[in-house]
Amino acid sequence: MKEHNDRYISKAVIRRLPRYFRYLRDMLGAGIMRISSGELAEKMNVTASQIRQDLNCFGGFGQQGYGYNVKSLYGEISKILGVDRSYTAIIVGVGNLGKALINTPMFEKRGVTVAGLFDVADGTVGETFGEHTVMHIDSMPDFCKQNGVNIAILTLPKTEVYRTAETLAASGVRGFWNFSNAELELKNHPDVIIENVHLGDSLMALCYSLAAGEENKDPE
Amino acid sequence: MKEHNDRYISKAVIRRLPRYFRYLRDMLGAGIMRISSGELAEKMNVTASQIRQDLNCFGGFGQQGYGYNVKSLYGEISKILGVDRSYTAIIVGVGNLGKALINTPMFEKRGVTVAGLFDVADGTVGETFGEHTVMHIDSMPDFCKQNGVNIAILTLPKTEVYRTAETLAASGVRGFWNFSNAELELKNHPDVIIENVHLGDSLMALCYSLAAGEENKDPE
Repeated sequence: MKEHNDRYISKAVIRRLPRYFRYLRDMLGAGIMRISSGELAEKMNVTASQIRQDLNCFGGFGQQGYGYNVKSLYGEISKILGVDRSYTAIIVGVGNLGKALINTPMFEKRGVTVAGLFDVADGTVGETFGEHTVMHIDSMPDFCKQNGVNIAILTLPKTEVYRTAETLAASGVRGFWNFSNAELELKNHPDVIIENVHLGDSLMALCYSLAAGEENKDPE
Repeated sequence: MKEHNDRYISKAVIRRLPRYFRYLRDMLGAGIMRISSGELAEKMNVTASQIRQDLNCFGGFGQQGYGYNVKSLYGEISKILGVDRSYTAIIVGVGNLGKALINTPMFEKRGVTVAGLFDVADGTVGETFGEHTVMHIDSMPDFCKQNGVNIAILTLPKTEVYRTAETLAASGVRGFWNFSNAELELKNHPDVIIENVHLGDSLMALCYSLAAGEENKDPE
């Protein structure tokens, strides 16, 4: 039995785990040591039964009538999420979004080390950000092999994404965090993991909710 | 009966709608005029029954054994999502992420006009991006009232987000697209819509899948 194996955990649950992780971290920070599934549900805006069901996927950490121990639940979820592991990443495409990402504490918090920056533009290659100097994309395959790069953060134009990702996958990169607003798929590399970020979807959900709110207000 | 009302549509369905929208747009672009729920399901990596159930929320657009008309489905979903509406937005915080957002075609595609940019930093206020000159945040409340701003895009530091959002809500802004990695809530303004973007959650899901993949590979 491999319980922490992705084959037994639905994608929807995996998507909720980072939220549990964040809420539990905030609670620990606020000195809260114990929480019931009902309280956790209220904070997370889901049902208590959903919470119990989700956490049961991992063996269940709560005791009936006693709630969850925040610290041990946080520790377990960290382990499941692989936060205690370390990853080596590169950023491909050093435009404004790439630059915004370099500066976030997000990577370090999740065990991800940004080891290199790559671009093609004359003005950008050679530029320095903190300890990194932007390298030309031609040197990327060798760099990935030599440094055991696990994750490529793709902040380059949509038109270039597919070809670049193919090159990276051939150089041993298995994780792709894709911001190019393309639905990236690498059919020749079935073992890669691709996380396509579609910021526009989130904007659309916001617009939808605004429009729906307006409709509710209209007298009929 | 108000069927397009958010009270009758679950948040999970709303979250899937932009994906339907994107897939249908790509299909239209590729000249595909008709699609079965099975084909759409395969493209979207969900079950056909999920698709039928989702689209039934809006009255159902398919005909048994005949599939969906891509163009009319796209049109209906656009309408539901409020893509045919127009919104006025401002970007608050013109750092790298703010700058990255200014340049995306995402807003125009979704009927959102960015009407103003705001910051507090001496070097940034007065800078020009395209047709916009960055204004000082002190002039933001008046600007919002005068221009009927609906949406504030918050790309400012986490520590400033809550206070800024309170000011904006008091100036009539109802939609908040929050990138500050804070779980923003405005308890004094129950009618606002807040879309908190947590990019780190997506990175975490990627790391989790990578770690799970490695475990599967280990000989046991």
